Amino acid sequence: MSKTRYKLILEYVGTNFCGWQKQKDKMSVQFELEKAIAIFTKELVNVFGASRTDSGVHAYCQVAHFELEKFYDPYKIKTAINHYVKPEKIVILECTIVENNFHARFSVEQKEYLYKILNRNSPSAIDSGQKYLIKYPILDIENMQSGANYLIGKHDFSAFKAKGCQSKSPIKTLDSIHIEKFNDTIHIHVKAKSFLYKMVRNIVGTLILVGKNKYPPYKMQQILLSKNRNNAGPTVPALGLYLFKIRY
Amino acid sequence: MSKTRYKLILEYVGTNFCGWQKQKDKMSVQFELEKAIAIFTKELVNVFGASRTDSGVHAYCQVAHFELEKFYDPYKIKTAINHYVKPEKIVILECTIVENNFHARFSVEQKEYLYKILNRNSPSAIDSGQKYLIKYPILDIENMQSGANYLIGKHDFSAFKAKGCQSKSPIKTLDSIHIEKFNDTIHIHVKAKSFLYKMVRNIVGTLILVGKNKYPPYKMQQILLSKNRNNAGPTVPALGLYLFKIRY
Repeated sequence: MSKTRYKLILEYVGTNFCGWQKQKDKMSVQFELEKAIAIFTKELVNVFGASRTDSGVHAYCQVAHFELEKFYDPYKIKTAINHYVKPEKIVILECTIVENNFHARFSVEQKEYLYKILNRNSPSAIDSGQKYLIKYPILDIENMQSGANYLIGKHDFSAFKAKGCQSKSPIKTLDSIHIEKFNDTIHIHVKAKSFLYKMVRNIVGTLILVGKNKYPPYKMQQILLSKNRNNAGPTVPALGLYLFKIRY
Repeated sequence: MSKTRYKLILEYVGTNFCGWQKQKDKMSVQFELEKAIAIFTKELVNVFGASRTDSGVHAYCQVAHFELEKFYDPYKIKTAINHYVKPEKIVILECTIVENNFHARFSVEQKEYLYKILNRNSPSAIDSGQKYLIKYPILDIENMQSGANYLIGKHDFSAFKAKGCQSKSPIKTLDSIHIEKFNDTIHIHVKAKSFLYKMVRNIVGTLILVGKNKYPPYKMQQILLSKNRNNAGPTVPALGLYLFKIRY
């Protein structure tokens, strides 16, 4: 008898996790889900995630899949996981049955990340730990957008790749970067089918230098073409990064 | 020698406070500020707030004033209060010196409140405790806006007044109500020079009945004209309410 494959859409606060992926003696989102499913079903499963978010990275919309021998109503699975993971700041938004050829990671058409910057003098009481604080100067988001536009398309992104990247090729296709501002908060939305290790955080870190007018916008293209990580800006902290949307 | 009057703009998470106003044996925003100022200056002061937010109500932008015998650089006051209130989820955004006729409460020209509703099946991991969750149905915000428009202007708002209201008159002038939606979140912005006790939360509770199509939009006018609290909807929880802006 064939197993049933379930797809989860979930939200989480990344602050207290070592990231999506299981690591010995650390609290990961993947392990918390597998533990909750095991308590409920008595089956030990592997949960596959669309994105292996790093330590501290949040998700408004992570997608995962797993298989079970016994059939359960997907709504019951959603309710049960939400019950057992409760203290861990994970919420299952949806659980549905999918075809057995659906793969949370390999079937992805596009991933969207959001980076949140708080650009003002004081930290926030309400959003504390959920936005990257840049006290001064006021970032020039028009220049940041102009700089970002040089990265759109298919390129060798080695200049924005962190050490330890397991990707076979540094060539990726960046679909869009869209920068907007609401009061004191800057949102940077980045879309691509896949990314190199810490690529979003390295791009944002470099765009911030453009926003501070330390680099002119066209410098983004020079850095890209140099393929040299040393020419790009610093990696911004994980606390401002959100996995925002997965498209299949 | 005359005292120096300082104006504060501050942000806070209302969850663990009994509200703005001091109450015996309870933790209030007002008391935490007075305590921090006393530690720093050794002066016992009264801090006056623009709005006496209720227990659980948050503020992106509360305004307060107080006076000190000794002169301090306002930046130092800001830094010192932020240091001493740290664990209490209060952040001073600005401290400036103002004329001695400025009064945080009596000089107000307009206050703006924001009410946040999360309108989806599941609670949020990221915004937990900061939005009012309405699981179903999807609220009809066009009807809510139409209903809200009946309240704009100068009216007797007795139908939306909670017991214990200390206002001399139930007549208030509502400047605007603006309802907008971002993904799963509904924002209701309400502006007026002053409000009756729990007026915003009672208006929102009634608009939700319109959003659920339990009431047609014009019912808002009938309720208003009835001047009877029993005809309006329930008071929505404090956790979704934010003091958003004070205009002088």
